Amino acid sequence: MVDGRALHRLIEELYPICRSITGDGLRETLRIIGRALGAEAPLETVEVPSGTEVLDWTVPREWNVRDAYVADAAGARVVDFRRSNLHLVNYSVPVRARMSLAELRPHLHTIPERPDWIPYRTSYYEDAWGFCLSARQLAAMPEGEYDVCIDSTLAPGSLTYGELVLPGETEDEILISTHVCHPSLADDNLSGVAVSVFLARALAARPHRRHTFRFLYAPGTIGAITWLARNRTRARRIKHGLTLTCLGDGHPFTYKRTVGGAAEIDRAAVHVLAHAGYPHQVIDFFPYGYDERQYNSPGFRLPVGSVMRGRHGQFPEYHTSADDLAFVSPERLAESWTVIAGIADVLEGNRRYRSLAPDGEPQLGRRGLYRALGGTDIPGLQMAMLWVLNLADGAHSLLDVAERAAVPFRAVRAAADLLEQHGLLAVVP
Amino acid sequence: MVDGRALHRLIEELYPICRSITGDGLRETLRIIGRALGAEAPLETVEVPSGTEVLDWTVPREWNVRDAYVADAAGARVVDFRRSNLHLVNYSVPVRARMSLAELRPHLHTIPERPDWIPYRTSYYEDAWGFCLSARQLAAMPEGEYDVCIDSTLAPGSLTYGELVLPGETEDEILISTHVCHPSLADDNLSGVAVSVFLARALAARPHRRHTFRFLYAPGTIGAITWLARNRTRARRIKHGLTLTCLGDGHPFTYKRTVGGAAEIDRAAVHVLAHAGYPHQVIDFFPYGYDERQYNSPGFRLPVGSVMRGRHGQFPEYHTSADDLAFVSPERLAESWTVIAGIADVLEGNRRYRSLAPDGEPQLGRRGLYRALGGTDIPGLQMAMLWVLNLADGAHSLLDVAERAAVPFRAVRAAADLLEQHGLLAVVP
Amino acid sequence: MVDGRALHRLIEELYPICRSITGDGLRETLRIIGRALGAEAPLETVEVPSGTEVLDWTVPREWNVRDAYVADAAGARVVDFRRSNLHLVNYSVPVRARMSLAELRPHLHTIPERPDWIPYRTSYYEDAWGFCLSARQLAAMPEGEYDVCIDSTLAPGSLTYGELVLPGETEDEILISTHVCHPSLADDNLSGVAVSVFLARALAARPHRRHTFRFLYAPGTIGAITWLARNRTRARRIKHGLTLTCLGDGHPFTYKRTVGGAAEIDRAAVHVLAHAGYPHQVIDFFPYGYDERQYNSPGFRLPVGSVMRGRHGQFPEYHTSADDLAFVSPERLAESWTVIAGIADVLEGNRRYRSLAPDGEPQLGRRGLYRALGGTDIPGLQMAMLWVLNLADGAHSLLDVAERAAVPFRAVRAAADLLEQHGLLAVVP
Repeated sequence: MVDGRALHRLIEELYPICRSITGDGLRETLRIIGRALGAEAPLETVEVPSGTEVLDWTVPREWNVRDAYVADAAGARVVDFRRSNLHLVNYSVPVRARMSLAELRPHLHTIPERPDWIPYRTSYYEDAWGFCLSARQLAAMPEGEYDVCIDSTLAPGSLTYGELVLPGETEDEILISTHVCHPSLADDNLSGVAVSVFLARALAARPHRRHTFRFLYAPGTIGAITWLARNRTRARRIKHGLTLTCLGDGHPFTYKRTVGGAAEIDRAAVHVLAHAGYPHQVIDFFPYGYDERQYNSPGFRLPVGSVMRGRHGQFPEYHTSADDLAFVSPERLAESWTVIAGIADVLEGNRRYRSLAPDGEPQLGRRGLYRALGGTDIPGLQMAMLWVLNLADGAHSLLDVAERAAVPFRAVRAAADLLEQHGLLAVVP
Repeated sequence: MVDGRALHRLIEELYPICRSITGDGLRETLRIIGRALGAEAPLETVEVPSGTEVLDWTVPREWNVRDAYVADAAGARVVDFRRSNLHLVNYSVPVRARMSLAELRPHLHTIPERPDWIPYRTSYYEDAWGFCLSARQLAAMPEGEYDVCIDSTLAPGSLTYGELVLPGETEDEILISTHVCHPSLADDNLSGVAVSVFLARALAARPHRRHTFRFLYAPGTIGAITWLARNRTRARRIKHGLTLTCLGDGHPFTYKRTVGGAAEIDRAAVHVLAHAGYPHQVIDFFPYGYDERQYNSPGFRLPVGSVMRGRHGQFPEYHTSADDLAFVSPERLAESWTVIAGIADVLEGNRRYRSLAPDGEPQLGRRGLYRALGGTDIPGLQMAMLWVLNLADGAHSLLDVAERAAVPFRAVRAAADLLEQHGLLAVVP
Repeated sequence: MVDGRALHRLIEELYPICRSITGDGLRETLRIIGRALGAEAPLETVEVPSGTEVLDWTVPREWNVRDAYVADAAGARVVDFRRSNLHLVNYSVPVRARMSLAELRPHLHTIPERPDWIPYRTSYYEDAWGFCLSARQLAAMPEGEYDVCIDSTLAPGSLTYGELVLPGETEDEILISTHVCHPSLADDNLSGVAVSVFLARALAARPHRRHTFRFLYAPGTIGAITWLARNRTRARRIKHGLTLTCLGDGHPFTYKRTVGGAAEIDRAAVHVLAHAGYPHQVIDFFPYGYDERQYNSPGFRLPVGSVMRGRHGQFPEYHTSADDLAFVSPERLAESWTVIAGIADVLEGNRRYRSLAPDGEPQLGRRGLYRALGGTDIPGLQMAMLWVLNLADGAHSLLDVAERAAVPFRAVRAAADLLEQHGLLAVVP
């Protein structure tokens, strides 16, 4: 279990930073993530120069902002980046100009149906500038002249991402990928970052891991593409993966399948959600959303699913200032951590076995196995044991058994452990 | 699109002719079909002599009728072939006799529950004779003597069918088969004939066809069997096929699957009906109905489905005089044409592609592809484009993509065209 | 058809005997079964010595009882084995002792919520003793001293089972397995025994059997394990199998699938139940219940399903004195026999055919086949004939045809017979 408050505190620390797909805000974010991961889970930071060709894309110029505002004739800042980094359209080119409200208006973005919220806008790949503000702010701006200042730089630099590898018994990898490019938005995706960090810490503390775990903290789209471009061969080792997004809000869970739809990660996620007791839905893959788009592209076809609560573009607070610290709660974050950790546990424990007494049922009583059941508090363990024995033909995995027996994975895992201890099972390598 | 009135006019012209599985009425029918097809779609007529062995069958003697009636003692015709060719049991042997009503009665067929309708009866393979009349007519016939005259001939001659081949880029064929043996019945099957003729005209006018299209106009059962007997080898080229029947009435559409049930024609038909917006149902194959029975027989197993509105034997007007010109409407005929043409379009356009930028998503913005979308009015084109790219792995056809994305085929077809124009896709040969 | 009263009479004769997994009651039971089977179906009895290792188990010592009771201080028997053999915990070790009610109480078993019923308890593999009695009996026992007598023997001897083989045209076997170890319980499993015996008689009377039928009457678990241990190679011949249990009560039928779930026996049983007109359910395999557990174990994986009415442990009378002669009825037994015999008929008649006129439909009228249909009373025979012809491609079995056509197996079987007689079908060897 995890303390959801610790996750929330990490989000609080990261929230004020002005992140983008490049720049110092992103670097600061990765520094804090690295500190939160701790020495047992050392984060490596990678800088990739602007102009580097990555797959079909090019690493863009680096963007940094010192200040940005719209001031009225009296010099009062009516829209001020210092109050919220959402006020500035992300990746705005530098501007210093005086203009009428009429000239300014095409550069101002609001959400008319939510007059108190500031929208979140970007213009990464087209030179443009703009400000986001609440509809109420805009309504209060009289006609007249305004001073516009965007003290930003767009210059050769680099794209930064962070990567953590926890080696396991095998080179088969489990990828946990989160995007880290959104500025002051708590759910999208600081919640995903927090769940990822605390999962990494828990796994790092384990004496033994079967899989190698790879945690990626990279800007959306271009970050995943950059990583893939630099790791074409290594990417083949990824046997299971998840993108984590929007995990702190109050919506039911959604699991979005891989493009293949029936990968082990799909079955593990569906199984864990079915037994976790939280409301949830499972949806098919579609080529939109977060970085699962890149991992599932035809050139890679990595089996990467996605776990989320609020869905991409489907809740009103999405990409607005209402996605704030109050929008995410310790309780929901802890639930999300439990689900993701449960999926990791299924993947780690999902082995195939061969019965060492396959002809008829072995005599469990003689071996004290019925007594052994008394020592546990796992419901359904006896039936799980009979199921594991019956399906221990080398062809069925424990997840197959759990699905077939309709019991939680931990029951078949515990049954297999008991049977293995009593010499009735052998793992299939 | 097609003008349903033109289809109805063709039906009107063909309606009065006394057709059968052989004979001059059939020849006249094929002559009119040939004229309606026009010079660009030249119909070939084939005569197969009586006595020719065709598969398990034999081409029967040819049947022609000059006159037929039942006259009362005063010489008045109380049942008269000249008023409706349905009055004579099709393939009746010649008769000239005087007999009492009691003797005549076993040869008279009515529909007691529809007292104004004349039934349609045949006796192709058993020497017999009879008259069909309305129950009201029969009730008005007093006891007494009647003169029976059937001035027909049953003599060595030939069976006639018509065939049109529109060559395509490949020898893979699409077969459109309609039966042409029913006399004055409008829906069964002049509606099928009209849809087939106008589809052939539209396809003939195209500069390019991928498939070779074969249109068959043949008498039911024995005509299809004769064609199959004479084209055993060529039949193997048929990759997709449809029988068309009862397409002018007001019933919802029914698609009847091939015996295999999952052929490309099945998926194309189901897809088109699902997106056409007309009420419809899809039913499994059963070895009864029209000539799909022959094409799907174990010796051929050609993937031939069937599109209809009213179903074989399942509506009261079926095989009665109520299946007349008023029973079929231009609107329904036009809808039917649209559906069949849509199926042909799916088969023609259903290619497999390979992405030329398969690693990650290509940068569509840089190529102006988002702007290109603005120039079209096809809803869902952007998502269709992303889907096509994601599934452009050489294994998925565009119909696979359309089914997966739940968008109309034309959207994925348009998306593939755009992507191909921008150098992002290559067709798999 | 069978006379359910004859089945009930056999149950009545077997009911009073004190059966167990070994001993003279079991021998006497097999003697009566052998007599009921008759000379045409000769039962072979096998004795396997105590101590024989069988798979993971060992044949236990043989158990016999002469007498057993609990008597009060006045010498009156308050619990008496002679009144019901359920009163004694099966396999109780010998005891002769005087003890207080408090000392005795841990050895007394009742069903508090059914105060008039005696439970059925066993202790085969752990040395123990005890008495079963009604809660009302126990309530009437005053505090005080009681004499306990269990005049039983647990000594080297043997385990007995009975086996009947009805040879067929092939060595492929159908196994019908029933457990015969329960004492005075009518439904579990004398009902299964009776259905099995009368099915064997009916099959023995047939002039021709395609499969070899093997009927096994063996004590539960250890009996099936002993048979499997002694017939490892021969067991491979079993192509289809059923365990029969609880077939005389008034519950709807339940068919429990094999572990594979889609064996021919599964399809045959589901088909017969679907067309038999009795309420029923089909459940998936689970590794609990009766001897299907052993047959389906990973070392054997014999496709053995299970037919029952009342389900293992799921009805209140299960393993109590309420499972008596009144709990099973001739009508229900006859229904059960009909279902099991119907399954055997499907397995016997389920052949693959090849059409001898596969190209198009053969002309049935010419061969008088439409007339032939008139001579039968089987509904749906004409469509069944067309279905058989269409699917007579050597790949489809008649059960495939029956499932596809949604008609009872006997209709396709009759259709295939007619077509074979008319030279249109040939069986695929």
